[in-house]
Amino acid sequence: MKGNIIVGQSGGPTAVINSSLAGVVKTAKDRGAKKIYGMLHGIQGFLDGKYVDLSDYIQTELDIEILKRTPSAYLGSCRYKLPEIHENTEIYEKIFESLNKLDIECFIYIGGNDSMDTIRKLSDYAIIKGYSQKFVGVPKTIDNDLAITDHTPGFGSAAKYIGTTTKEVIRDAIGLAYNTDIVTIIEVMGRNAGWLTGATALAKGEDSPGPDLIYLPEVPFDIPTFVSKVKSLLKKQKTVVVAVSEGIKTKEGKYVCEYGAAVDYVDAFGHKQLTGTATFLANTISAEIGCKTRAIELSTLQRSAAHLASRTDINEAFAVGGAAVKAAFEGDNGKMIILKRVSDDPYQCTTDVYDVHKISNVEKLVPREWINKEGTYVTEEFISYIEPLIQAELIPVPVEGIPRHIVLDLTKK
Amino acid sequence: MKGNIIVGQSGGPTAVINSSLAGVVKTAKDRGAKKIYGMLHGIQGFLDGKYVDLSDYIQTELDIEILKRTPSAYLGSCRYKLPEIHENTEIYEKIFESLNKLDIECFIYIGGNDSMDTIRKLSDYAIIKGYSQKFVGVPKTIDNDLAITDHTPGFGSAAKYIGTTTKEVIRDAIGLAYNTDIVTIIEVMGRNAGWLTGATALAKGEDSPGPDLIYLPEVPFDIPTFVSKVKSLLKKQKTVVVAVSEGIKTKEGKYVCEYGAAVDYVDAFGHKQLTGTATFLANTISAEIGCKTRAIELSTLQRSAAHLASRTDINEAFAVGGAAVKAAFEGDNGKMIILKRVSDDPYQCTTDVYDVHKISNVEKLVPREWINKEGTYVTEEFISYIEPLIQAELIPVPVEGIPRHIVLDLTKK
Repeated sequence: MKGNIIVGQSGGPTAVINSSLAGVVKTAKDRGAKKIYGMLHGIQGFLDGKYVDLSDYIQTELDIEILKRTPSAYLGSCRYKLPEIHENTEIYEKIFESLNKLDIECFIYIGGNDSMDTIRKLSDYAIIKGYSQKFVGVPKTIDNDLAITDHTPGFGSAAKYIGTTTKEVIRDAIGLAYNTDIVTIIEVMGRNAGWLTGATALAKGEDSPGPDLIYLPEVPFDIPTFVSKVKSLLKKQKTVVVAVSEGIKTKEGKYVCEYGAAVDYVDAFGHKQLTGTATFLANTISAEIGCKTRAIELSTLQRSAAHLASRTDINEAFAVGGAAVKAAFEGDNGKMIILKRVSDDPYQCTTDVYDVHKISNVEKLVPREWINKEGTYVTEEFISYIEPLIQAELIPVPVEGIPRHIVLDLTKK
Repeated sequence: MKGNIIVGQSGGPTAVINSSLAGVVKTAKDRGAKKIYGMLHGIQGFLDGKYVDLSDYIQTELDIEILKRTPSAYLGSCRYKLPEIHENTEIYEKIFESLNKLDIECFIYIGGNDSMDTIRKLSDYAIIKGYSQKFVGVPKTIDNDLAITDHTPGFGSAAKYIGTTTKEVIRDAIGLAYNTDIVTIIEVMGRNAGWLTGATALAKGEDSPGPDLIYLPEVPFDIPTFVSKVKSLLKKQKTVVVAVSEGIKTKEGKYVCEYGAAVDYVDAFGHKQLTGTATFLANTISAEIGCKTRAIELSTLQRSAAHLASRTDINEAFAVGGAAVKAAFEGDNGKMIILKRVSDDPYQCTTDVYDVHKISNVEKLVPREWINKEGTYVTEEFISYIEPLIQAELIPVPVEGIPRHIVLDLTKK
């Protein structure tokens, strides 16, 4: 019999973040964990004393199966950055007091860069103070910007959604444009890393063109060059579809959306909140070229569209959740589970454990050589990297025509 | 052996407009049509001499099957209004000269209100001039605003997409909101009719709340009342999700988006092009309440998301296409195929033919009694009406993880 486990979810949701939770719960049960607790709204909720005994809620194999198909954080998420240890030990003592009271042996945290920072700090504190808890992180982010791991769970499903949706948008535009030109700008998430925006290239195939231009935040964006490129494309075709990252900047280092927008909002981590890049560029094209334009912001749909998840992604998310429990039970501490691509063809991927200190607060960008020289498209290498991650489907379970989810109903227990 | 058929597609695309085309092609073949022509970009392209012999392009049963799963107009669409007959007979003579040259017996047009107007005028002109062609319309519009027919093909799939996406957006917001309130405004298509916006209520079930407020264009919208409703909802919950139609107006008759937007664009039919209702309302809430807000515009995704089509809708779209060919071959002229709901439980629906003069240019709005007294939600009757239309799925055929489409490649022949 092993000790107790606590698991939390943190940061922006994905379509498969609950598949990792399902992997944690399943493996913890299989390996004989005594109790499996879930923090509500991550470490922030836990600090407020909010947690549940998950055996009260996830009970059947069907629960596990529906959990794998439910988007967004089942336990609730948070965006909360722990202070540095030397800044405030009180908060750490409070956390460990609660962990000790619950007799926690393993602390599993499913999240992105900021969540791995939490794992790093808590594991450091445990070592400093001689606490016995093991802290292991489970990678999760649609942004695919975590270091060391080949890719992050959540990215494949978002990429599949973005590729499919881009293809449908292109088809829509081509079907409509006859005597009018239509320029469509699709805005994709990704503050500094262009992985998701590059995924729009997946639309391209023998039955569809891809976007005409793809702009990632890794390369400075020039507004006049962009306008003249669209102008020259319109000389030979009726529709132009452009994919842009929300985070593209000019060479002066200013976000493109700031040229048009009034809003300047900063979140709890000091990240600038961006909106309106597509709208700004569509308005610019309207004014400069005078054609019909459309701005499409994929917004939160791209991270919550579990109805179009990648089965590969769901399975890998489940696997990293399970691997985290195994690692923690075997004594790993201050580690994150990573995905290691063993082979490209056939695609094979395994899990491994890695020191979280080398991962947290490092952002993995798209390598410059995976973007064409002009900075207007991704290369074949980019596509080959991403393609295995979007393969296969896990069909939603529809009830009355709408996909079924499982939700934590605290009033039920 | 029957004579030749020509078929066209017109107006805004849907996820299933090609399923109707597939129904036309299949039935025309089965009933022994000599030739099946397709107008490129509807009557507008036909006037420019653009058409194809479809037997060169849609050849196998697999082609038909993929066509049913391909969104947007395979033949290309147009937004083109024929002049009144007395205004310009030249254009009519030109059309009939081409039809006679191609030995056309039946003219099938797949479209919405404006397309039925085309069927009406052409059939009138044929009668006046003694031409023998038969003109039959196939209903198609995500807006569900055609008269007489129980509903329109294209609506069910859009409703399924909207219901599913709304549910995912609600889950995303609930998962994230802990110490911050989040107000999400979802903007749905529908200039005058609120059918699509009402479909957001499909998100509601035992595993999910629905939107908190739903505003249709059938009821005047009051901005201060809206703000105070959101304010009072935030007293008892962390997230508020509001669905609004792009076409909501204040009691002064002014579009809500006009209070914020600068753009004033009118399309070929004199309809005002609207954008930015959600953005305007989100900004208003930010300013008045000071909480985090999100504006999500479903934009063209809602009409082109074949990856989440309703199988019921696909089958009905196919059936009305076939029924149009049958009707035209049997001598019907100036008619539209309608869907007749025979039974609600179990849901049963058949096709019938109806005089297009009583359909074209009439808009079917959501009955006032299907909207609650306050004008902030749809009733159970509305949900019961819509629910059968979103049932079952027709899974896309993925190639390399992305749904396969069939496209008209004019360079191939």
